[in-house]
Amino acid sequence: MPAAIPEDSVGLVTPQCLQFDQPLPLSCGRSLDHWELMIETYGELNADASNAILICHALSGHHHAAGYHSMDERKPGWWDSAIGPGKAIDTNRFFVVSLNNLGGCHGSTGPNSNNPDTGKPYGPDFPIMTVQDWVHSQARLADRLGIQQWAAVVGGSLGGMQALQWSITYPDRLRHCVVIASAAKLSAQNIAFNEVARQAISKDPEFHDGHYYEHNIVPRTGLMLARMVGHITYLSDDGMRDKFGRELKDGKLSFDFNPQFEVESYLQYQGERFSSSFDANTYLLMTKALDYFDPAGEHGHNLADALAPATCNFLVVSFTTDWRFSPERSRELVDALVAARKPVSYAEIDAPQGHDAFLIPIPRYMEVFSGYMNRIADALPQSEGGAPNAR
Amino acid sequence: MPAAIPEDSVGLVTPQCLQFDQPLPLSCGRSLDHWELMIETYGELNADASNAILICHALSGHHHAAGYHSMDERKPGWWDSAIGPGKAIDTNRFFVVSLNNLGGCHGSTGPNSNNPDTGKPYGPDFPIMTVQDWVHSQARLADRLGIQQWAAVVGGSLGGMQALQWSITYPDRLRHCVVIASAAKLSAQNIAFNEVARQAISKDPEFHDGHYYEHNIVPRTGLMLARMVGHITYLSDDGMRDKFGRELKDGKLSFDFNPQFEVESYLQYQGERFSSSFDANTYLLMTKALDYFDPAGEHGHNLADALAPATCNFLVVSFTTDWRFSPERSRELVDALVAARKPVSYAEIDAPQGHDAFLIPIPRYMEVFSGYMNRIADALPQSEGGAPNAR
Repeated sequence: MPAAIPEDSVGLVTPQCLQFDQPLPLSCGRSLDHWELMIETYGELNADASNAILICHALSGHHHAAGYHSMDERKPGWWDSAIGPGKAIDTNRFFVVSLNNLGGCHGSTGPNSNNPDTGKPYGPDFPIMTVQDWVHSQARLADRLGIQQWAAVVGGSLGGMQALQWSITYPDRLRHCVVIASAAKLSAQNIAFNEVARQAISKDPEFHDGHYYEHNIVPRTGLMLARMVGHITYLSDDGMRDKFGRELKDGKLSFDFNPQFEVESYLQYQGERFSSSFDANTYLLMTKALDYFDPAGEHGHNLADALAPATCNFLVVSFTTDWRFSPERSRELVDALVAARKPVSYAEIDAPQGHDAFLIPIPRYMEVFSGYMNRIADALPQSEGGAPNAR
Repeated sequence: MPAAIPEDSVGLVTPQCLQFDQPLPLSCGRSLDHWELMIETYGELNADASNAILICHALSGHHHAAGYHSMDERKPGWWDSAIGPGKAIDTNRFFVVSLNNLGGCHGSTGPNSNNPDTGKPYGPDFPIMTVQDWVHSQARLADRLGIQQWAAVVGGSLGGMQALQWSITYPDRLRHCVVIASAAKLSAQNIAFNEVARQAISKDPEFHDGHYYEHNIVPRTGLMLARMVGHITYLSDDGMRDKFGRELKDGKLSFDFNPQFEVESYLQYQGERFSSSFDANTYLLMTKALDYFDPAGEHGHNLADALAPATCNFLVVSFTTDWRFSPERSRELVDALVAARKPVSYAEIDAPQGHDAFLIPIPRYMEVFSGYMNRIADALPQSEGGAPNAR
């Protein structure tokens, strides 16, 4: 809970739920006829709607990216470090839109929503979503908000995949694409970790083939294990050493099977907390969307060919110790963009925090990010929006 | 099943079970009064018992390191690539001893053995074992076999930790210590992966607090998940890409939650196979032994001080893509040995296979290993044993 809202915060924010009644055709062949998106916006849309930024979220993310829902909220939105007055995504200059993706569990239509055809939660019958599907739904959202062209689509991790897909699917609807700690496709190792998480959830006896809502229970153990595995891959080996070392919880070894090292207790706590707040079917769905993303797949595995339609500018950022989405994956993307003759800036940020670094206001990262975003803002019509604050 | 036993194999071998009736005091404060070790030996002990090599096994290993138990056996022992006539550990020159450690599940006394006090399996009441405890039990084994001093103690991974502990605890009982793909202690990340495996097992409803034997069931799901996580960490990201890429099982994506990529099916198969052959309590115990190993811990975290008692020669080997026991950990060990003024040879082998590389006959690895072992053999009394074969 903040004692007072910090000056560089977007302050108190209220989510909105938008309803859509035009069917949305999906990659799997099915469609959603009636669907809702939970969104938040920060800043003001300018007169010609040219200052809008779309934020795409990662596996466990949602619409609440910045500010506070109430004075009782313990922590601000998940990317508050980057979104706010004077921050990298400067809400004095930009109109920022953040949403919970379809299939999510934070208010947008997803597996825990009621299926209008049955009156019961979709559960495992909710269609599998792809990054492409999300981008189409986000285009409908842009239409609804009167945004013909985003100044930028921005995302980290799975969010970066959505930004990249935007540049291919709707090239004339964004001027800039910001892809942070992401990849043009998962590695076999990434898929393997996701599969462990899915097995942990789906083999939990309380999963009930995805119909756990009807049993009034959740597969907590499976979700906990999935989160523990995920969490390890978000941190670097060095980062974990710096954070936990081999510190013992009670100062000395005891010869039993209880957690004895700090890192064990930390992971258990994180896993248990997650298991009481996240929907298991959504977790399965999000990991599948990650696995399936592979825009080069339809172009003979030539990523440059897949990126040919893009007309926007690109910023790609990676972090040295990120082994889930390693700098090598970002360099592959940059190489493909260069081969496709697209304008791209690339920064590899020296950071010990692993994949999690993309959520942390590391000075050089924020300088690169702010610098890029400020150039976008400087190109906006000067008469519109608040006065640009000199940085 | 071999059509015929290969010429460089130790051939058909028969395990032996040795009984010990002198109590073995353990690190946890308890002791084992009656215990058994399942062992195999290859080659002939020479007249002055100077050509004996002890093989220490890793997490899921056992006594069956080389050769075949029968002509029906599908695969030879787990380190057959390194042990045999003319191989790195040349059984024409050495007498090789391999055992299943205490706490194991392949015939030595462990959680699935009957507790003589109760007449029921020990289960979770089996004492937690440490690397130090294993080394003490192996010293008793050496006594039994009439081996006052090992020509070398050799191990990979957790086996390398045992070799290292031998050099500290019984410095006058080995002339050489070979530590392969190992570390002087686990990192926080290693411990974290082990804790995921333990949680997966202990939260499986079929674990029954470790008393699953009495319920005539095994916690298969937990063991499967534990093995899947372990398996990912044994392979490198590059190795998985080379082995599986993003190949689809049925050639194309289908939009459901069944395994679709080759890597998913492979891991599930490996996990399921393991879950029907390995004891869950043993898995917990082995991972704890890994976590607890930290000889520097009792010496103000100064590894060179911990190694001060050692009088043997050392060979340390690491593999470039091993991220479970990375070359950095081996270099730390080498640096400490150098600081402690111990004779050490070090080879970092370029290999794409990750941690698993230590089980694979990679040419440069085998050259380094053979070269080192042949120098040991060359120093043995020439009148003893078989004629050294010229290599």
